[in-house]
Amino acid sequence: MKLVIFAPGGAAPRVGVADDDAGEVRDVAALLPPGAGLLEVIDGWAEFGPLLAERSASLPARPLDSVRLLAPLPVPRRDVFCVGKNYREHVAEFGRSGYDQPDRSEALPEHPVVFAKATTSVTGPYDDVLSHAGVTAELDYEAELAVIIGTGGRGISREAAFDHVWGYTVIDDVTARDLQRTHKQWLLGKSLDTHCPMGPYAVSADEVPDVTALQVESRVNGELRQSAAVKDLIFDIPELIATISAGITLLPGDVIATGTPAGVGIGFDPPRFLEPGDVVEVSVTGLGTQRNRIA
Amino acid sequence: MKLVIFAPGGAAPRVGVADDDAGEVRDVAALLPPGAGLLEVIDGWAEFGPLLAERSASLPARPLDSVRLLAPLPVPRRDVFCVGKNYREHVAEFGRSGYDQPDRSEALPEHPVVFAKATTSVTGPYDDVLSHAGVTAELDYEAELAVIIGTGGRGISREAAFDHVWGYTVIDDVTARDLQRTHKQWLLGKSLDTHCPMGPYAVSADEVPDVTALQVESRVNGELRQSAAVKDLIFDIPELIATISAGITLLPGDVIATGTPAGVGIGFDPPRFLEPGDVVEVSVTGLGTQRNRIA
Repeated sequence: MKLVIFAPGGAAPRVGVADDDAGEVRDVAALLPPGAGLLEVIDGWAEFGPLLAERSASLPARPLDSVRLLAPLPVPRRDVFCVGKNYREHVAEFGRSGYDQPDRSEALPEHPVVFAKATTSVTGPYDDVLSHAGVTAELDYEAELAVIIGTGGRGISREAAFDHVWGYTVIDDVTARDLQRTHKQWLLGKSLDTHCPMGPYAVSADEVPDVTALQVESRVNGELRQSAAVKDLIFDIPELIATISAGITLLPGDVIATGTPAGVGIGFDPPRFLEPGDVVEVSVTGLGTQRNRIA
Repeated sequence: MKLVIFAPGGAAPRVGVADDDAGEVRDVAALLPPGAGLLEVIDGWAEFGPLLAERSASLPARPLDSVRLLAPLPVPRRDVFCVGKNYREHVAEFGRSGYDQPDRSEALPEHPVVFAKATTSVTGPYDDVLSHAGVTAELDYEAELAVIIGTGGRGISREAAFDHVWGYTVIDDVTARDLQRTHKQWLLGKSLDTHCPMGPYAVSADEVPDVTALQVESRVNGELRQSAAVKDLIFDIPELIATISAGITLLPGDVIATGTPAGVGIGFDPPRFLEPGDVVEVSVTGLGTQRNRIA
């Protein structure tokens, strides 16, 4: 099932079920508790999953392109977990750029590099991404598959990891490279307002029989920049869930962005940073395409 | 005003006003909206501040030591902002330890080093801190003054920074040094469950005429380990607020832990890590003392 959050005609944001083949969305708020968003749907998925599957098709549809989609989790319960340097070729390009370490090491990480993006960086799949002139001059894109946790827990094993996955979404881990470098820890460079476009859909795991087969892609002004399969992750999804949850209780609705493939702006020599007016498209097979203008 | 969150006799957590000279706490839930916690009090401080000041004293008091105090923000709105390497002597001890960089550089940071602690790391001021055997073998303490944001905003100037401070609390930025080192980015090493004891009090800014005069201290099993004045911060509170908010909208209730002074476990040679049974006390002048046993 593809869930969206949308705000029709100035009304409060609500949950919709999208059919992207038909280009339609159905408002399912009437089937849910008042004010429910995706967090409440995930919390109650054992009840709401079957209910929405059974009854949403009977609700009136409207054209998907007639509504403004928000991020599936416009206000996440906490910061987004993110993984750095998790595709081999990206590790190499990041190393060569000198942005990470002065020695330009291309060594693969021995353990997942996990950092956070602040909640306020989240924005909708078609919203403008702010360039933050005066704060950063080195804006970059990072196409990523993101996992949405369903059942929380601590000490989740590799074997049990997919039992804790509610589903998936698309994220652009927009990065201010200068801040990422100068502040050493990445939180600030990764968290500027609007620097986490999310969506368009939150797709439940039953629609994704083999997540490793999905292709993660980005385009800037129509030019393909990144394209890699999820099977190329250095640390795969079970490993990420096991590593993070070893000592941290994962919560329903937690988002884990799994890392970006080669082809980001600093991978070019000279770097190709984003400029106002550029349009970045990020897509993952079956999860939809987001499209954000740099403003 | 010193606010606490406490759960008397198994009841739901509620806000109290503490008088630590008298050793008393007053349940002020009747003056607040149903279910209100500190976040709601801060959101409505213009109304609730005067109301609590005027009317709480007439409510019945009970002994402070008869109730279990929770963290003032048991479930923060998002991850805690933290600042690394923000006292000169601590930068030197951290550099010498080799934990940060193999070259053991003692150079001062040129920009604030900002990272996050996950929400689930927060625990009460007298709760046990889990040792997480099998996950970490290098548990360390870090006494810190934390700022609680009142009015949110982006692009807050140094000059306006204190207008955005609601108040202060005490944090032990408990750190799994092995995870901090091996994962490069610090989120995992800083975020294990119970590794952010907070409180005992959330103290409104009007009680703190000069925050730079406060002394930050820690003791392990009664032995003084850290003691420094807030005036020794490399990047002071206005600088931290201006830097973080330059591109990130700060929210009411956001917590910024300002950094730890010299004297942490890795500052010793050999390092003195925490062991089960150890008791860590962290205090800041006027903000109270937290006391946590390692379990």
